[in-house]
Amino acid sequence: MAAQAPQAGRALDGRVILVTGAHGALGEAAARACAAAGACVVLLGRRVPKLTRLYDAIEAAGAPQPAIYPLDLAGATPDDYADLAANIERDCGRLDGILHCAADFKGLVSLENTPPEDWQRALHVNLSAPLLLTRACLPLLRRREDAAVVFVLDDPARVGRALWGGYAVAKFGLAGLVQVLRDELEHSPVRVHGLLPGPMRSALRGKAYFAEDPGQVPEASAYAAACVRLLGAAGRGEPATVRAAPERAPVPRLHVLPS
Amino acid sequence: MAAQAPQAGRALDGRVILVTGAHGALGEAAARACAAAGACVVLLGRRVPKLTRLYDAIEAAGAPQPAIYPLDLAGATPDDYADLAANIERDCGRLDGILHCAADFKGLVSLENTPPEDWQRALHVNLSAPLLLTRACLPLLRRREDAAVVFVLDDPARVGRALWGGYAVAKFGLAGLVQVLRDELEHSPVRVHGLLPGPMRSALRGKAYFAEDPGQVPEASAYAAACVRLLGAAGRGEPATVRAAPERAPVPRLHVLPS
Repeated sequence: MAAQAPQAGRALDGRVILVTGAHGALGEAAARACAAAGACVVLLGRRVPKLTRLYDAIEAAGAPQPAIYPLDLAGATPDDYADLAANIERDCGRLDGILHCAADFKGLVSLENTPPEDWQRALHVNLSAPLLLTRACLPLLRRREDAAVVFVLDDPARVGRALWGGYAVAKFGLAGLVQVLRDELEHSPVRVHGLLPGPMRSALRGKAYFAEDPGQVPEASAYAAACVRLLGAAGRGEPATVRAAPERAPVPRLHVLPS
Repeated sequence: MAAQAPQAGRALDGRVILVTGAHGALGEAAARACAAAGACVVLLGRRVPKLTRLYDAIEAAGAPQPAIYPLDLAGATPDDYADLAANIERDCGRLDGILHCAADFKGLVSLENTPPEDWQRALHVNLSAPLLLTRACLPLLRRREDAAVVFVLDDPARVGRALWGGYAVAKFGLAGLVQVLRDELEHSPVRVHGLLPGPMRSALRGKAYFAEDPGQVPEASAYAAACVRLLGAAGRGEPATVRAAPERAPVPRLHVLPS
């Protein structure tokens, strides 16, 4: 099939890219875009039916065959991350990039009314898991000539406010993690970036902006090209934190006829 | 004894102040200063002999009788924080402020070479414990007319660099926590501040700046007055993050005679 033959010149041809939170809004959009750019995408998430649908869609588009990796980061341990790295090495032979899209946000609630287990879960999924997963995969990434780890951040000015809870605190921590890890890997083949997308239509946003018309918010796919750029050779000159503007204006879901 | 009679006009007269990490450099200096300013200080730390010596020193200085609360934050659970709040209520009758000085820093090491348990410990002691402890004490603090919670931060420009590990990441998170919690408590009697002291002579600093002459670094006591100010009524107008300059120049420990 012509569509499955490698197309020279695509940004991620031959690369293996791990996407966490692959069935979330940004994760799915980015995974599709990475596959369309030639990558073999490892789709990590906790909901197998959603991962399977995404797998089928990527295959149907004629992109390189992806892989599914079911894992709930909330309960994942260092052993799980070690297994993940070993499985990627065995089945894919290499790893060129990680895109950390997985996020945990239960909705707007004060810290005072947050059960300790929700706080711990937010710190774990949004901060500890990205670090520990990356750490386990670093030996694989170091073997490539150009590898990239991209952490999806959130705007400190927007989430550093009442009711954003452990999600906000973890995202502040993640911004620090990007700085520390990038500095440590400066003389290695592994680049580290924080990606700060603008507003996007997602389940997470819907939990906070429930009075907003989602049709006025850009789709997550508007930030997919920025993900592909950072994960490929084009990302080499990019700074530690990259603020991404949507590629296109939102397409309203409802078309209002003039009266 | 005249020295034990309440002295009118002292900044923290009658207040009960909980100091975590009370046997660390800043914790001890701040606890002594709070006691000298009239506060009943609850000294929380994991090393009982050190807490006892500090207790004796505060008593010998004629300050209000302090209290000792042995607790290792690394292993503390939500039940421990609930017990702490209940014990303070029972024994002290009130709580007017918390000064979070406890810190965990094992020394400069790359994230790649940090054992997962060290990462978790750094996040727990430097970030989760301050939040969960504060959360447990909020009902007590809310009963006061003016209460304050002060989190000791570290300079993002200094620690957001290679080898500062989980300590750095947790301090970035703590800066976010200050913003979120302060915003949530804006219309309550509880003020929230982040205190960003300058360099200070401490065991923590010694683990990172081992080539430095400690005599050239200000003592932690140079920042004690800033702690007292934030914990008392004088802190009411202070912003979310307060950068403290040392009150006085460092006193070299070695006196070099002119040749």
